[in-house]
Amino acid sequence: MKSTVIAALAISLSTLLLPVDDYGAPSERVAQQPSLAVRLGYPPDAKLLIVHADDLGMAHSVNAASIKAFETGLVNSGSIMVPCPWLSEIVAYARNNPQADLGLHLTLTSEWTPFRWGPVLAKDRVTSLLDKSGYLYLTEVEAASHADPKEVEAEIRAQIERARALGINPTHLDSHMGTLYQNKALFEVFIRVARDYRLPIRVAREWFARTDFISEVLQPDDAYIDRIVDINPAVASSDWAKFYGEAIKNLQPGVTEIVVHLAFDDSEMRAATFDHPDWGAAWRQRDFDFFTSEQFRKLLQENNIRVITWRELGKLIKR
Amino acid sequence: MKSTVIAALAISLSTLLLPVDDYGAPSERVAQQPSLAVRLGYPPDAKLLIVHADDLGMAHSVNAASIKAFETGLVNSGSIMVPCPWLSEIVAYARNNPQADLGLHLTLTSEWTPFRWGPVLAKDRVTSLLDKSGYLYLTEVEAASHADPKEVEAEIRAQIERARALGINPTHLDSHMGTLYQNKALFEVFIRVARDYRLPIRVAREWFARTDFISEVLQPDDAYIDRIVDINPAVASSDWAKFYGEAIKNLQPGVTEIVVHLAFDDSEMRAATFDHPDWGAAWRQRDFDFFTSEQFRKLLQENNIRVITWRELGKLIKR
Repeated sequence: MKSTVIAALAISLSTLLLPVDDYGAPSERVAQQPSLAVRLGYPPDAKLLIVHADDLGMAHSVNAASIKAFETGLVNSGSIMVPCPWLSEIVAYARNNPQADLGLHLTLTSEWTPFRWGPVLAKDRVTSLLDKSGYLYLTEVEAASHADPKEVEAEIRAQIERARALGINPTHLDSHMGTLYQNKALFEVFIRVARDYRLPIRVAREWFARTDFISEVLQPDDAYIDRIVDINPAVASSDWAKFYGEAIKNLQPGVTEIVVHLAFDDSEMRAATFDHPDWGAAWRQRDFDFFTSEQFRKLLQENNIRVITWRELGKLIKR
Repeated sequence: MKSTVIAALAISLSTLLLPVDDYGAPSERVAQQPSLAVRLGYPPDAKLLIVHADDLGMAHSVNAASIKAFETGLVNSGSIMVPCPWLSEIVAYARNNPQADLGLHLTLTSEWTPFRWGPVLAKDRVTSLLDKSGYLYLTEVEAASHADPKEVEAEIRAQIERARALGINPTHLDSHMGTLYQNKALFEVFIRVARDYRLPIRVAREWFARTDFISEVLQPDDAYIDRIVDINPAVASSDWAKFYGEAIKNLQPGVTEIVVHLAFDDSEMRAATFDHPDWGAAWRQRDFDFFTSEQFRKLLQENNIRVITWRELGKLIKR
């Protein structure tokens, strides 16, 4: 997920320091619920964290680094891009690790200029999603501005059905590069599909204050989290560990997801991202290095942070 | 191209030692022509060679190794797989190197289990080409046995049109894993499309003796070559240089194509080919090592071999 919107929505360190109640003005029916931590069975002051790797299936380098990070136990969740070339490799991992907390990273963009992919559906059924080369658009802004919401709905349902046919029961849904958060029509599609599949979604309660349509569309039964930590290009590469370290030290009670992008700084990833260092090969190696480090493990321990998964969120949804 | 058929059709060292006239029984109208070397303007005893890298666009490792080999000047031709994820990277190379001898490696298979691709056309238009996961079939035998020739024709025309739209004017056509040589109906499609685009094709005159339909379908105006050298899994990895060295020392007059498969033995290629060492990462590194070596350069010089390209073959075709 490399998204200007998500970057803008993502929590900054300063807002992390604010009390939870300042996070926004959800509609009353949402606000009346007990806190998410309490609904999940934790004390109200529990600091709950999902450490989530995006972009599984995109490239071998992403798969290999993410699987290695899962094996450390420090990264405990991830989401899969069904249209991407290395899907089958991560599907094999998922089948061999049925306990893994794997969702779908619904994909409407193909963002690396030398390395592209198309939709799951037949191209003539989703022409509004395709650039002139027949791939998904390079950016979330282009994708959202051209996308027919009906075609978006058909395509994301097809991505979910494809994953299920391959033996994956996704634990949650999110949106690659935040395309489905770009406007209300796309967000309504996202929420409708998530409800149909009874799946929790990457939406943060903190977003209510910043994007009107988020709280307008959500209902009390939807399962989402309190906040998201997502590093962005404004952070200098030398400040990587500092950014994440401070985010963890300042973590507020409730459920937070740290969204990370793992890969190795190797020839495949360097080639894919050669003209786009943001969320590029070195960026992903830095994320890998931090989130598989003893430093991160100690930070979790020292700050009394409890790691949870999307499976727990999923149990909040009525069946 | 990893093809049992092509491996079977490929010249063995023993047949390389036979005089040209023993190669087969082409139909009389074909046999009556002067030799290909003479038609190309060379002496009848000229030993002409195309050193051809297959599978461009398949993976970054393939692109990177092939481009590096092109830069040595020792590998002088290649063909591109339009449906593959790394197409855009090789298209950028082609645009920056308009003199490069690049054809299309028409693709009807997706052979690596963790790393897959689909057709260029909308999937619902070419259902006979797709496995149950919606990708092209894993093997040329499965592909050929399911393929509706009309859908094959539509798909390979779409691959050519896609390449042209991206600025590539292919100099020749060949068939990934030899799928289009699997039966007469598919071969007829291949030849019809090649004629429409006035392009030379990877067909070897030596095949006439072994596959009836080849000479039945070909006409005097079709542009193809005399023979093909293509290493196969029967060669031990320790005998790689020996196999190629003897093939070059024994090269007969006329036009031969050496078909090579270049990539680096790196993490991307190892992952893609992990369960298929034939035409796998180490195989491709061995090809790269030999065909960029001083040993190969010396062999070409010492054996008076003249390197030509498919562009020269293309000039034989009436416009």
